[in-house]
Amino acid sequence: MVRKRITKSLAVQKRARRRIPGMSQLLSKRPDQFSLGTWPGYFHKAKGVMVWDLDGNRYIDMSIGGIGANVLGYADPDIDAAVMKAVRLGTSSSLNCAEEVDLADLLCEIHPWAEAARFARTGGESAAMAVRIARAHTGRDTVLFCGYHGWHDWYLSANLQTETLDAHLLAGLEPAGVPRGLAGTAIPFPYNNTEQFLANYKKVYHDLAAVIMEPIRSQWPTDGFLETVRACTTESGAVMIFDEISAALRMNSGGAHLLFKVTPDMAVFSKAIGNGYPIGAVIGRADVMASAQKTFISSTYWTERIGPTAALATLKKHRALDAGKHLMEIGKLVQESWRRIADRHGIAITISGIAPLGHFTFDTPDGAELKAFFVQEMLDRGFLASTSFYSMYAHTKRHVAAYSEAADRVFAKIKRIRDRGQPVGRRLRGEPAAMGFRRLA
Amino acid sequence: MVRKRITKSLAVQKRARRRIPGMSQLLSKRPDQFSLGTWPGYFHKAKGVMVWDLDGNRYIDMSIGGIGANVLGYADPDIDAAVMKAVRLGTSSSLNCAEEVDLADLLCEIHPWAEAARFARTGGESAAMAVRIARAHTGRDTVLFCGYHGWHDWYLSANLQTETLDAHLLAGLEPAGVPRGLAGTAIPFPYNNTEQFLANYKKVYHDLAAVIMEPIRSQWPTDGFLETVRACTTESGAVMIFDEISAALRMNSGGAHLLFKVTPDMAVFSKAIGNGYPIGAVIGRADVMASAQKTFISSTYWTERIGPTAALATLKKHRALDAGKHLMEIGKLVQESWRRIADRHGIAITISGIAPLGHFTFDTPDGAELKAFFVQEMLDRGFLASTSFYSMYAHTKRHVAAYSEAADRVFAKIKRIRDRGQPVGRRLRGEPAAMGFRRLA
Repeated sequence: MVRKRITKSLAVQKRARRRIPGMSQLLSKRPDQFSLGTWPGYFHKAKGVMVWDLDGNRYIDMSIGGIGANVLGYADPDIDAAVMKAVRLGTSSSLNCAEEVDLADLLCEIHPWAEAARFARTGGESAAMAVRIARAHTGRDTVLFCGYHGWHDWYLSANLQTETLDAHLLAGLEPAGVPRGLAGTAIPFPYNNTEQFLANYKKVYHDLAAVIMEPIRSQWPTDGFLETVRACTTESGAVMIFDEISAALRMNSGGAHLLFKVTPDMAVFSKAIGNGYPIGAVIGRADVMASAQKTFISSTYWTERIGPTAALATLKKHRALDAGKHLMEIGKLVQESWRRIADRHGIAITISGIAPLGHFTFDTPDGAELKAFFVQEMLDRGFLASTSFYSMYAHTKRHVAAYSEAADRVFAKIKRIRDRGQPVGRRLRGEPAAMGFRRLA
Repeated sequence: MVRKRITKSLAVQKRARRRIPGMSQLLSKRPDQFSLGTWPGYFHKAKGVMVWDLDGNRYIDMSIGGIGANVLGYADPDIDAAVMKAVRLGTSSSLNCAEEVDLADLLCEIHPWAEAARFARTGGESAAMAVRIARAHTGRDTVLFCGYHGWHDWYLSANLQTETLDAHLLAGLEPAGVPRGLAGTAIPFPYNNTEQFLANYKKVYHDLAAVIMEPIRSQWPTDGFLETVRACTTESGAVMIFDEISAALRMNSGGAHLLFKVTPDMAVFSKAIGNGYPIGAVIGRADVMASAQKTFISSTYWTERIGPTAALATLKKHRALDAGKHLMEIGKLVQESWRRIADRHGIAITISGIAPLGHFTFDTPDGAELKAFFVQEMLDRGFLASTSFYSMYAHTKRHVAAYSEAADRVFAKIKRIRDRGQPVGRRLRGEPAAMGFRRLA
C-alpha cells in the first residue's frame, strides 16, 4: 500500500477544469464523481484490466470498465487487430464500407426478429434515431419510457413539468435548454410497475408513438410486465423499443431481451458492442425501419469504417467465448464479496444491479465521504474502484480475490475509524464524492 | 478507357438495400445520388487520392473527398501514425484521455475569442449540443438559422410549417417524426439577405436563443451581413453560433470566420478536423460554455481517444502545411476547368460553392441523366467524379490535369450525342441520378 503521486494527472485536471465545462464529456467519468483530488482522472495506457495513469501508476481496474464500453477488456488484441487493419486500408473515403452491411446481417442473425439496421456512433444519437423512426412510422409524438436514454431533447423533455411537487422525474438530469414545446411528449414509468405503466398508457395511447425501455436494469422483470408493454404497444399501434445500450452483451451475446422471450419492434445498441470504439446501432422490423426513409437521418461520420469493424469483431469474439457467462460469474463474485465484507464489518450498504453491472451505496448520511474514502484507500492499494463494478471478460477470479482482500481491509479501516468515534470525512485527502443522477429503474 | 466490372460492389449493394434503409448512413454517399448500377458504392482501400472498390478497380477520387471529411487525403500517414499509437496504448478506459484537453487548448489558441470546448463524435450532435447550450444560456427557445445543420429535431422542425404554399423551407429534408410542439422554434433565413434576416429577427428577438449559421457557403459574405447578425445577437442577448462543420479548414487552418473579422459566441466543428476519424467540437466564450453545466450533456463514446488524437494531428499538420492555400488553388483549377470545358462544348452548367467545395449543375431538364452519364463515363476513365468536387491536400495539379482531360472528353461525347438528336439518358447503363436536398444558402 502506497500513496500514489498524481502530480501530472492533477495538472491536466486543472487545465481541463478551465477548458472543459464539467471536466469530462461524460458525467460518470468526472473525477468529482469519485473523489476530486485523489482520483487520477486521466489514463496514459490501458491493457486488459490494467490502467496506467499519467504519472505511471498502474492500477487494476475494478470500477466502471470504461462505463460498460470495454466489455472484453482494454486494448483487446483481436478487436485492435481488426481496427489496425481497417486503419491500414483507410477508414474513410467517398464510398461506403461494406463492414456495415456485414454488421447489419450479424445483428439480424443474432436477433432473428429484426430485418434491418441503421448505424450511428454514440448511444444518445442511436436512441434519438430510434425515437425519430418510431414517430415517423406512427405519425404520433408521445413516447413512454423507462430507464436512461441519454442527453437528447426528446428524453430530457420529461423534466420540463416542474410545476409538480416531485420536481424532476429523472433526478439530476437538468432540462435547461430543452424547448418548452416538448413538454408532455415523453413520460416515464418505473420498471416492473405494470399498474403505473397501464395508467400512463391509458392517458396517451391514442397518440402513442413508442414505448422505449431498458429490458432490464436493477431487477429481473416480473411476470407479465414486459408482456403487458408488448400487448399494449401492439394494441395501440405504437412501436416497442428495447434500449439495449447498457444491457446487451452482459448476460448473453446479444440483446438482454433475448432471454425474456418478448420481441420488440426495434432495439438500440451502443457501448459494449464496440468494445471502446464508437458505434451505435438501431435494428428493427423491416416495415418499421423503412419509415427511416420518410424522414431525414444522415451524418458524415456514421460512414467510417472503425465502428462497424470493431462491432463485428466484438460480437463474434463475445459469442465464441460465451463471454456473458464469465461476466455474470465475475460480477456475482464481486457482489457477494461486497455483501460478505460489509456484513463482517457492520457497514450498512445496499447492493443493486444485475451481476455484470453492479452498484452499492453506503446507507449512512456520510455516504459521499465513505465513497470517497473507499476510492482513496483502494487507489493506495492499486485499484481503480468505486461503488460500481462493471465486469469485463479480462477480469479473472484472481483479480476479484485481490480486490476483495483490499476492499476487506478498507472496510475494516472504516470500522476502526468509526469505532473511535471519528468522522471518516476527516481522513479524506480529496473531496467527498459528488452524487450524480440515479437511474430511473 | 475501360468499362469497370463491379460485380462484388453490386452484390453488396443488393444486400445493403435489403438491410439498410437508404443503403447508406449518409444521403450524400447513397449510390443513387450518383448512378445506381454504375457507381461502385463501396471501397476496399483508400490512400491519398486513390480509392479501390471491392472488385479491385482503382480510381482517382475527384468527387466529394469523403464528403469533406478527408481534407488531407485518405489514410494520411501522419494522422494514421498518431491513431495507431493511440490504439496501441488503448483508446478507452474508465479514465479520460488527456488528448481532449490538448485539443481544447489548440482550438482556443486557433480561435483566440474562444475559452472553452466540449466534444462529440459527429457533426449533427455537435450542432445539437451548441443549440442546447445556447438555449440553456438564454432561457429562450427560438433559433434563427442559415445553412445546413444536420438531422436533429431542433433543425428539421423548420419544416413542420407545411401549411404554407412554399411547402418545405429546407427542400428535401422531411420532418416526419419531429414533434409538432417544436413548430416555430427554428426559422431559416437566406445567406447574404440582411433584409430577410432583420425581418425574421424583429418577429422573434424577445425569445431569440441563438442565431446559428454557416459563416460561408456558396458566396462570399456581402458587406455588413455578418456584422448585422452580430449586432442583433448582441442587442438581443442571443448567442451567435458559426457552424463551421463544412467551412473550416478549407481556406485557412481554422474556422472560416477568422477570415471575416466577425467574432461569434460559439462555433461548431466536425468533418475536416478529424480527417475521417469521428470527432465533433463546440467551442465558445467561457460564460456561454459554462451554461453546459446548467443542463445534461453526456455520452460514453465522447470519451474515447481516437477522435481528439486525430483532430490534434490534423489541425497541426494542416497548419504546418498551410493546407488551405493548396485546397483553394486546386479547387479553383477544377472550377475553371468546368467552365472552360462546358463553354467549349456548349453545355449549360451553373457553378457554385467556394473553391474547395465546388458544385455544378446541368441546366437542362435532363440534368439527372447528364449527371449519371458524366458519373458513368468518368468511372470508365478511372475517376470517381460527379457534379461536386471537394479538394483534398493530396490532390495535385497533375490529378486536376488528368481529370480535366477526361471530363473534356465526356463533355465532347455529350455534345456528339446531342448533335445527333439522341437523348443522353438512353446511353446510361445505370439509373439517372437521384436529386438530394439542396443546401439553403
